Amino acid sequence: MNPLSSPLLTDHYQLMMLQSYLEQGMEERAVFEFFVRKLPPGRNFMIAAGLEQVLDFLENLKFSSEELTWLALRFPPSFIAYLEQFRFSGDVHAMPEGTLFFPEEPILRITAALPQAQLVESRIMNLLHFETLIASKAARLVMMAPGKLLVDFGMRRAHGAEAGLLAARASYLAGFSGTATVLAGMLYGIPLFGTMAHSYIQAHEDEATAFEHFAWCHPDAAILLIDTYDTEAAAAKVVTLARKLLADGISIKGVRLDSGDLAEHARRVRQILDDGGLEKTTIFASGNLDEYRMYELSSSGAPIDGFGVGTALDVSSDAPSLDCAYKLQEYASKPRRKCSEGKATWPGRKQVYRNYGADGCLAGDVVALEENDPHDGKPLILPVMQAGRRINADTTLNQMRQWTLAGYARLPKAMTTLEVAPTYPVVISAPLQALAKQLDEMHT
Amino acid sequence: MNPLSSPLLTDHYQLMMLQSYLEQGMEERAVFEFFVRKLPPGRNFMIAAGLEQVLDFLENLKFSSEELTWLALRFPPSFIAYLEQFRFSGDVHAMPEGTLFFPEEPILRITAALPQAQLVESRIMNLLHFETLIASKAARLVMMAPGKLLVDFGMRRAHGAEAGLLAARASYLAGFSGTATVLAGMLYGIPLFGTMAHSYIQAHEDEATAFEHFAWCHPDAAILLIDTYDTEAAAAKVVTLARKLLADGISIKGVRLDSGDLAEHARRVRQILDDGGLEKTTIFASGNLDEYRMYELSSSGAPIDGFGVGTALDVSSDAPSLDCAYKLQEYASKPRRKCSEGKATWPGRKQVYRNYGADGCLAGDVVALEENDPHDGKPLILPVMQAGRRINADTTLNQMRQWTLAGYARLPKAMTTLEVAPTYPVVISAPLQALAKQLDEMHT
Repeated sequence: MNPLSSPLLTDHYQLMMLQSYLEQGMEERAVFEFFVRKLPPGRNFMIAAGLEQVLDFLENLKFSSEELTWLALRFPPSFIAYLEQFRFSGDVHAMPEGTLFFPEEPILRITAALPQAQLVESRIMNLLHFETLIASKAARLVMMAPGKLLVDFGMRRAHGAEAGLLAARASYLAGFSGTATVLAGMLYGIPLFGTMAHSYIQAHEDEATAFEHFAWCHPDAAILLIDTYDTEAAAAKVVTLARKLLADGISIKGVRLDSGDLAEHARRVRQILDDGGLEKTTIFASGNLDEYRMYELSSSGAPIDGFGVGTALDVSSDAPSLDCAYKLQEYASKPRRKCSEGKATWPGRKQVYRNYGADGCLAGDVVALEENDPHDGKPLILPVMQAGRRINADTTLNQMRQWTLAGYARLPKAMTTLEVAPTYPVVISAPLQALAKQLDEMHT
Repeated sequence: MNPLSSPLLTDHYQLMMLQSYLEQGMEERAVFEFFVRKLPPGRNFMIAAGLEQVLDFLENLKFSSEELTWLALRFPPSFIAYLEQFRFSGDVHAMPEGTLFFPEEPILRITAALPQAQLVESRIMNLLHFETLIASKAARLVMMAPGKLLVDFGMRRAHGAEAGLLAARASYLAGFSGTATVLAGMLYGIPLFGTMAHSYIQAHEDEATAFEHFAWCHPDAAILLIDTYDTEAAAAKVVTLARKLLADGISIKGVRLDSGDLAEHARRVRQILDDGGLEKTTIFASGNLDEYRMYELSSSGAPIDGFGVGTALDVSSDAPSLDCAYKLQEYASKPRRKCSEGKATWPGRKQVYRNYGADGCLAGDVVALEENDPHDGKPLILPVMQAGRRINADTTLNQMRQWTLAGYARLPKAMTTLEVAPTYPVVISAPLQALAKQLDEMHT
């Protein structure tokens, strides 16, 4: 059993509601939309991600006999019989992965029989929330390290295995060079990077022997970790080793710094390597890095060629969650609105139109009703699944990554820094506002 | 394929190091320990969790033919042949899950051939880090809501599916009453709780009808969500409905508040319910709750019987990661020490001894060498796996939960609040300090 595709990745109330919907014959078409209510502090935009995992989940949704047996102890036979036949046969519309987006803009719409659209809420949110969170964090890191190699090192402190895998995917989508997580390489085709751990050095009787063994084993790929005992002394050992290995055609690809003042160590190590004729040996840095540290290091001119980013990326540590929602916007062809204090939603099926300025940069979006509410601009929400089957499903992860990078190039300059930019204009269309008002009046 | 048990849940450098270890015949016994370097801000202790998942992983570790085929494109045949035979045949010592612990105290020790102990690093950290993080967060929530029903609502904003599942487990271990995540109920036997969503109300033409349908479907389990439009008006509808259903033997179990001023709404709703004769109908609250909000609500005397906690619990949002490490402490019978700036480790195989005061409360721990370094107090690290097979594996999750709760009862009072308590005394034994000094001198 693969728990990651289980339909029981849902909240218990979904099953309780489904039972009631079925008793009442409430199986008409429902429309739910997923959106983010507000930006995390300090962020200027978000990157839509996770759609492919959502579509995989929906396309393969099916209760296993093991699950049905377990459920049968808790729910009546008629409900179990329904679940046995349960498949997702609805439609999905969404922004392509890698699209920049803003609060109040739906990035995914589910149109399906009410019980279907309801059951999948928990897992859809779980997937879109996390990958969007990480892609949006990764975007900041990418912007602070132009031209540098950027590698996801975070699986060990990611929240479970799936978080490690999806963080590798979402960060690659957002412009990272690759990941250290091997299974992410296998599952998603993401380039893999690896150096060595302190334990490798410690297990050897001395550091120089450890370096030599590793270089022999990986003649053109060895990145030697030089901070286990004394960083600069280790850099000198690398120079000595490189001379010794020259005759055998073995070169040292790079060194890694993982502690102390990275900028200062990098400068000293660069000097030692250059003086030793190792101008091509790169310097890679890791150790509690985030976008602020990377900005400092980059702007101080520290001679660092690449960064490994772990915890800050994989848990999005400054903003580990998004205020997002998956809300019923229409049922049985009637628009619906939640009016709870501070949590009201925009009703109806919606489209987002994006406008660009004369400079080619993003200039403002309109959130409008899908029907009879036309606007200028590029519509961002496209059909991606029809009657439970994917359509236009041939976009690769590398193409999505290119789409993301193309999006960065169209961001106004103020939005590409770590400073908070002026709020990006997202206008709610007049017909949508009127509809919301009309629904409010029904309930007062 | 179940990705959660894949040996490729590892970092690429582990495979690169393994290759080199094998070339050099470095397969002697290695000892690695997992520990947390420091408490997250504001925390007074941690709860060890995740051991069962680690042991599951180790016991079933095996490369699938699909994985080997993929690896064969990247590594030489001799290495693939080795991986084909790869099993974990080492020993594990650990603190039982639910044990309170402190920085610098190892909670798990792996003793195995170096390549085995190395390969599993990434996943061991991934599991122990996350469950310990969540159990430690849940402990704070449990302490702020004595006698209340506490339910994990967080799967939708947990970081992926495994995080949702393990957060349900870790929070239950730490004293939560149960979870909303159905699959966690099936996998771990955790009690399940569920109410209804706003969409259920919205899909009906009016709120009262929605309430009635749900109550008919769940005659003794209906918890009605009353904040979709007007909370107090909805409470009055609940009273009317309860009267109507009385003759049919149907009662309303509870109501849920999910927005606005929860304390104020709870007081008003309690009054309405009581005036309507519904003294037994409980009030359940949710909506961006954390331990501070729960403390406020509890201490203001708000008549709330239970809480659903989502994001703050499942992502441990105030401290979404722990500064933890899995470090080589011994290889080929020689102790090892990492000396990197700010990241030095205590070498050798260790035991933790716990002492209790006359009042029965925790009074101080000693971290000592396992051999020839005896101390008073209860040794916390016990053997749990021998030669790759579990020993003493009959403890249930409910028993671990009881062990956790018993631990809370022995905490000094200052450590049971949300204030920062004086640092708990953890002494590094003199022989351990001497060993560390001796190893440092070898590298200077």
